[in-house]
Amino acid sequence: MQLSSCKCFRETFVKSEDFVAQKIVVTKDSSRGVHFRRAGPREKVYFKSDEVRACVVTCGGLCPGINTVVREIVCGLNYMYGVNDILGIEGGYRGFYSKNTLKLTPKVVNNIHKHGGTFLRTSRGGHDTNKIVDNIQDRGINQVYIIGGDGTQRGAALIYQEVAERGLQVAVAGIPKTIDNDVAVIDKSFGFDTAVEEAQRAINAAHVEVESVDNGVGIVKLMGRYSGFIATIATLASRDVDCCLIPESPFYLEGTGGLFEFIEQRLKENGHVVIVLAEGAGQDYVAQDMHAFEEKDASGNRLLLDVGPWLSQKIKNHFTKVQKMAINMKYIDPTYMIRAIPSNASDNVYCTLLAQSAVHGAMAGYTGFTVGPVNSRHAYIPISRVTETQNTVKLTGRMWARLLASTNQPSFVTDNEALNGEKAAGINNVEISTQS
Amino acid sequence: MQLSSCKCFRETFVKSEDFVAQKIVVTKDSSRGVHFRRAGPREKVYFKSDEVRACVVTCGGLCPGINTVVREIVCGLNYMYGVNDILGIEGGYRGFYSKNTLKLTPKVVNNIHKHGGTFLRTSRGGHDTNKIVDNIQDRGINQVYIIGGDGTQRGAALIYQEVAERGLQVAVAGIPKTIDNDVAVIDKSFGFDTAVEEAQRAINAAHVEVESVDNGVGIVKLMGRYSGFIATIATLASRDVDCCLIPESPFYLEGTGGLFEFIEQRLKENGHVVIVLAEGAGQDYVAQDMHAFEEKDASGNRLLLDVGPWLSQKIKNHFTKVQKMAINMKYIDPTYMIRAIPSNASDNVYCTLLAQSAVHGAMAGYTGFTVGPVNSRHAYIPISRVTETQNTVKLTGRMWARLLASTNQPSFVTDNEALNGEKAAGINNVEISTQS
Amino acid sequence: MQLSSCKCFRETFVKSEDFVAQKIVVTKDSSRGVHFRRAGPREKVYFKSDEVRACVVTCGGLCPGINTVVREIVCGLNYMYGVNDILGIEGGYRGFYSKNTLKLTPKVVNNIHKHGGTFLRTSRGGHDTNKIVDNIQDRGINQVYIIGGDGTQRGAALIYQEVAERGLQVAVAGIPKTIDNDVAVIDKSFGFDTAVEEAQRAINAAHVEVESVDNGVGIVKLMGRYSGFIATIATLASRDVDCCLIPESPFYLEGTGGLFEFIEQRLKENGHVVIVLAEGAGQDYVAQDMHAFEEKDASGNRLLLDVGPWLSQKIKNHFTKVQKMAINMKYIDPTYMIRAIPSNASDNVYCTLLAQSAVHGAMAGYTGFTVGPVNSRHAYIPISRVTETQNTVKLTGRMWARLLASTNQPSFVTDNEALNGEKAAGINNVEISTQS
Amino acid sequence: MQLSSCKCFRETFVKSEDFVAQKIVVTKDSSRGVHFRRAGPREKVYFKSDEVRACVVTCGGLCPGINTVVREIVCGLNYMYGVNDILGIEGGYRGFYSKNTLKLTPKVVNNIHKHGGTFLRTSRGGHDTNKIVDNIQDRGINQVYIIGGDGTQRGAALIYQEVAERGLQVAVAGIPKTIDNDVAVIDKSFGFDTAVEEAQRAINAAHVEVESVDNGVGIVKLMGRYSGFIATIATLASRDVDCCLIPESPFYLEGTGGLFEFIEQRLKENGHVVIVLAEGAGQDYVAQDMHAFEEKDASGNRLLLDVGPWLSQKIKNHFTKVQKMAINMKYIDPTYMIRAIPSNASDNVYCTLLAQSAVHGAMAGYTGFTVGPVNSRHAYIPISRVTETQNTVKLTGRMWARLLASTNQPSFVTDNEALNGEKAAGINNVEISTQS
Repeated sequence: MQLSSCKCFRETFVKSEDFVAQKIVVTKDSSRGVHFRRAGPREKVYFKSDEVRACVVTCGGLCPGINTVVREIVCGLNYMYGVNDILGIEGGYRGFYSKNTLKLTPKVVNNIHKHGGTFLRTSRGGHDTNKIVDNIQDRGINQVYIIGGDGTQRGAALIYQEVAERGLQVAVAGIPKTIDNDVAVIDKSFGFDTAVEEAQRAINAAHVEVESVDNGVGIVKLMGRYSGFIATIATLASRDVDCCLIPESPFYLEGTGGLFEFIEQRLKENGHVVIVLAEGAGQDYVAQDMHAFEEKDASGNRLLLDVGPWLSQKIKNHFTKVQKMAINMKYIDPTYMIRAIPSNASDNVYCTLLAQSAVHGAMAGYTGFTVGPVNSRHAYIPISRVTETQNTVKLTGRMWARLLASTNQPSFVTDNEALNGEKAAGINNVEISTQS
Repeated sequence: MQLSSCKCFRETFVKSEDFVAQKIVVTKDSSRGVHFRRAGPREKVYFKSDEVRACVVTCGGLCPGINTVVREIVCGLNYMYGVNDILGIEGGYRGFYSKNTLKLTPKVVNNIHKHGGTFLRTSRGGHDTNKIVDNIQDRGINQVYIIGGDGTQRGAALIYQEVAERGLQVAVAGIPKTIDNDVAVIDKSFGFDTAVEEAQRAINAAHVEVESVDNGVGIVKLMGRYSGFIATIATLASRDVDCCLIPESPFYLEGTGGLFEFIEQRLKENGHVVIVLAEGAGQDYVAQDMHAFEEKDASGNRLLLDVGPWLSQKIKNHFTKVQKMAINMKYIDPTYMIRAIPSNASDNVYCTLLAQSAVHGAMAGYTGFTVGPVNSRHAYIPISRVTETQNTVKLTGRMWARLLASTNQPSFVTDNEALNGEKAAGINNVEISTQS
Repeated sequence: MQLSSCKCFRETFVKSEDFVAQKIVVTKDSSRGVHFRRAGPREKVYFKSDEVRACVVTCGGLCPGINTVVREIVCGLNYMYGVNDILGIEGGYRGFYSKNTLKLTPKVVNNIHKHGGTFLRTSRGGHDTNKIVDNIQDRGINQVYIIGGDGTQRGAALIYQEVAERGLQVAVAGIPKTIDNDVAVIDKSFGFDTAVEEAQRAINAAHVEVESVDNGVGIVKLMGRYSGFIATIATLASRDVDCCLIPESPFYLEGTGGLFEFIEQRLKENGHVVIVLAEGAGQDYVAQDMHAFEEKDASGNRLLLDVGPWLSQKIKNHFTKVQKMAINMKYIDPTYMIRAIPSNASDNVYCTLLAQSAVHGAMAGYTGFTVGPVNSRHAYIPISRVTETQNTVKLTGRMWARLLASTNQPSFVTDNEALNGEKAAGINNVEISTQS
Repeated sequence: MQLSSCKCFRETFVKSEDFVAQKIVVTKDSSRGVHFRRAGPREKVYFKSDEVRACVVTCGGLCPGINTVVREIVCGLNYMYGVNDILGIEGGYRGFYSKNTLKLTPKVVNNIHKHGGTFLRTSRGGHDTNKIVDNIQDRGINQVYIIGGDGTQRGAALIYQEVAERGLQVAVAGIPKTIDNDVAVIDKSFGFDTAVEEAQRAINAAHVEVESVDNGVGIVKLMGRYSGFIATIATLASRDVDCCLIPESPFYLEGTGGLFEFIEQRLKENGHVVIVLAEGAGQDYVAQDMHAFEEKDASGNRLLLDVGPWLSQKIKNHFTKVQKMAINMKYIDPTYMIRAIPSNASDNVYCTLLAQSAVHGAMAGYTGFTVGPVNSRHAYIPISRVTETQNTVKLTGRMWARLLASTNQPSFVTDNEALNGEKAAGINNVEISTQS
């Protein structure tokens, strides 16, 4: 079996013995660490073009670039392998069993990458492994492309297992989607760059607002349930932020070294302060303060308490009542305005690579894998690898150190806590043998 | 006395008998109506360049274009009339008596129009007529340019009266600033165009979000305390909005012809609905529902109840509990992101015209006036004229009719109510004799 | 006969005796001047909804907003009057006789306003009155909407005459399209605002480039064949331009008061200079210098010599060879990048008004008319009125005076020349009686 | 000696034995290849804060992000190491000996990253090693940060050698600046992302223009003297491009497999075609056709012939005269509009990392080095390494294969030529031992 139509990749076939190293900063005697199969076109193709019936589904919240990934899966299958039978599953996992499918062709998807959102529509939850695999079997689908976040990928792993147990020749490929960039193993998730770019607008607005008044306090809430990547990188990109609060780094308000003290000091120095706040920051603190109980959404994600208004109110109260100091609070929540925009050029290229890697992998007969760059080289990674842990901002890492150097904000933690915190959270520093 | 440096305007001096008609749609026998003095350079200039000491102050909330107005007052005074002594009053009215002034030159203000906010900083309140006029007198200021909203212009009128009573030769010029476009008499307030443009981002985001899910309900709250101009024009510009709620048009939620019914119908037809909501919409309704009491801010503006979260919650409750229908609510409040951006090209030109008109007027010796276009011709208007009423969207006018035709939303009112409502509110349809 | 579906306009019907005055700056004894019929919905509608077969055609070059006009003609006819039979003529005038038509419905045109260009495609020339009217007759079309520039509107007038001579009951409505804003009578043409906004990018780029080097000379060529509106307003909006050259104002290079002298002086003062150049500026001068002959394009427009590279080369030569002074020339031609963008919010609203006015006019049985705002009120104007003269920047007017005050550039002309020039060009200052 | 003020990096000191591998796609038995010293803060600092006198200079053409690099060198030296004595050399290399220096502080550079261009101004050429090093010596400068392209970095190497020969304790650090991304060894040069993003505007415009007419041919010329990275990645990001021509891949116009044939075919299929053209594409071909001789600019760069107008004319002639087919040519050159914009968020973060790495390196006492990411880890690289070869698009690589798959354009070359071409050009595939 062979690549059906495109000779472009002839010089660039990936050999089955090509691997990507997870660890590349090395000392002379360090072990070679975990390696993943390199993604890319294989000389040997498992599926015949005219036997392929592929389907694509998108699940969970919006993220810039979903449409580009969908477009490039369709175009990749069609242009590179001559596949003509591609179905869109509409409205997330439940679309497998509750809705009609949509025929996808390069023409149908030609311009969707210029628009935000997802052309295939989406939903949370709705994962019923048996009903989904029944449907896959009934429709004669043999390639399943699943674009979605953490919960979605766990669902994809279940589909892969069920498919395997039933002995079906179906390739299951996951493309990890999380605007938060909290996917383990891979360098970066798609849409992240676009999100950081768009977040600049909100930070700029907050900065302009607080610079124009006395004692201006600007708070910008950004995405990041369990990881503060968007908040961290958006802060570094802006240079107008005084303090960045993320889930990985607990903070406190009162007393020496607390946030109130820091705000007061900046107001005295500069007359204004801008705080960037990841949505998952301080959740335990907020819950404790609000005597709240934990709830979950349809995807199984813990429902977060809204830290933005809570913090705004806390700060307002403190300065008005305790400090007798009038402050001008400007709170901005740009979440939907960030999620809904089309992907920028950089993410478009990235989404193309992800989609093409997924297509090459499925066509080569791999299954139960996700795709993504590891140290800037695209690789195939077992789904379980990316769902078993989450990527978080390392408080002892270079990026966070750069942020602290740039904002000069309080660290809120002792060095010991930082180290222990990371060990306790079981952060992704696995050192296991190569897998396929 | 003469224009000191610029011959550009020689051919274009405005004659003192030039007037601008407020009413231009005429029938054959209609009276000629109210007329205002046309703005522009006069052949006779009242102030000698080297005797002018001008000051500029900005008050109230942010609005795109403030910096352009400030820049052009400074450059206009300097380039057109050779004035070199211009002071910036910092931080609003209270800057007159509580802060040092800032020397303003064309070089200092050269690039400020490229940035949002106000270079001179601002505050609410702080108006103390006597302290301010004492300060004007002490500093030897003879031209006062006051950029601010409704409350600020009322303050300007008080300053003008006090100045007149003390017999000071001081020109007081107001430049009306209100992002809401609710200034009476004039065609449009500066920053409005930019605000409507930027509001499109939020509406687009809401539309993308709700199109991507089942039963998506998007709500975008826009500025507009007493008038729904931004909401109305942003809705017309977008074509993606299903319903626009403004202060001028009361609405109700329950029952036949109510908002819930309309939402349900659109969800059934299209699967999603986008609502644009002016911040002042339904205030009485909200107040009644929340048993809230009226409060005021430092500028004397009534503190509005936040209709956005209130409406979101009401809709969520209704559909979840009453209709047993899961909806996807996406609420966006882009207020600060809109206010803080720099003015666009169209507003830059407009701000330039306003500033130059103000400068020509003050140099010609007019006082107690504001400037602005009446039927697209710039005119001088007595300050009292623009503060005694507010401009609102006329429910029986063409623009609102166009909006209703475009959204096909419920009118919520009988025709009688519409007409009576307007009469009751004393909307600006004055028919008085020409003034100066 | 009646408005079929929409009661929105009930309160706002325009009476047949409503007129819009062309002249509104008045002195006490001035005559009332020219008046045009006010545009808007009429109580009496001429066409029955189910008897209407409308068609829309777009001709000439691109301009932001064409798609919005097309969308709103279709939606206006359908939503406001219940018309269902609307055809798109593809590819300009020749589409009437050489291509199939396209069925237009609100659904088909729903999102086209978010994209630049023209959904109906366009071409220059191809006007064959008889073939077009034969085709109109054969297809049973009784409303023709023609979107296009000067040449196109002259074609529309010919169609109107031929239709009248044949005694056909066909309404012919023209919507003037010219990014140059050179349409006589009306306040502004659609797309102009967007063009001025987008032009800022090119001016900013030129300014940044020349500020970063020694002796930087930036030239930005903007649209404007016979009128310098875009160049003038873009210059006023930017405040970074040193000199603006437009077709209405001849200039010369050498000697006292010439452009070279001015550039040299600005380079000495500031180290850089930015020139904005309308494409039609200095055509006679260039032609003379290049010994070129006049050519015309398919629309009958004179083919302009490219003044941009010519001027860049002239300046480079002068400073290198004559002045022995190295300059850094940065020439930018953003024409296509400006023409091809989607219309901004302000133009979207404006295009909607134009389209709705055209629809109301045609449904009321008017024909041979164009639409547009006169002193900010929309009016119906005989096509001949807008084609017999062109709108140009008045060198003795307020806007040009403001520009000269802002750039302080040489006037290149004596005052006498300015006045004579305008008289000679037959500029639109007609004072004729009311027409329909 | 120690980090003077910032403890942020305590956990993240880079050990002197940390290296970054140049080659990370490995097979089981492959050698370990070239490694570079990892960039980052060292525990041992060579310079005492109060003994440092640093200077920064920017040379060559504009590129988004220069100001961010300058800002972060200044802030990095000041915030991280307490350095207060930092000089700006104005206007490129010749600023060392012909102009006064500018004192740089965090406050002075606080907002420069929000603007395009270079705050320090720039020039080409002017490199006089002796005069420059004399000046460094005279002023007591001991850290020199040089931001510039290929020629500039060769100049930096000469300064480094001269400094070494004179036995001066001066750290010379180069930050490679090339919008073309043609720097060897490192992953990507700063400003590249921003350039690719901005290039989308021009491609979009070309696409909209040609879609709106019959036989539309759009040509967009992008930067890329010797390498086609911007053209390649911008093409991949857009998905609207039919053909991408780059310097690395020779092309021909006439005959089978030539460009004319391809254009004709696309015009027949789609009615339009969009070509992206790197400025260095086809230079030999153009030179031969124009009988032109080679010239060089002040930086020693070969003066390219302008391939854009040449190709436009060739295509126009061919179709008009040979094929008797009217085409609509739309040529766009957005070069200055791309170069002059501020860096986007992604480049801002990247510029920060580059600047901080350079500062850490110089403070640690390294010299004669440049900085940049190698396989996404920042490293110190001997200057000579990045100037001895250039990075080019590999015609046998994955990215070009993806582009060919996406455009389906002719390859213009046999496979043998591709391989030989690359060998002949001595492309960067060195396999040498670790250096410092």
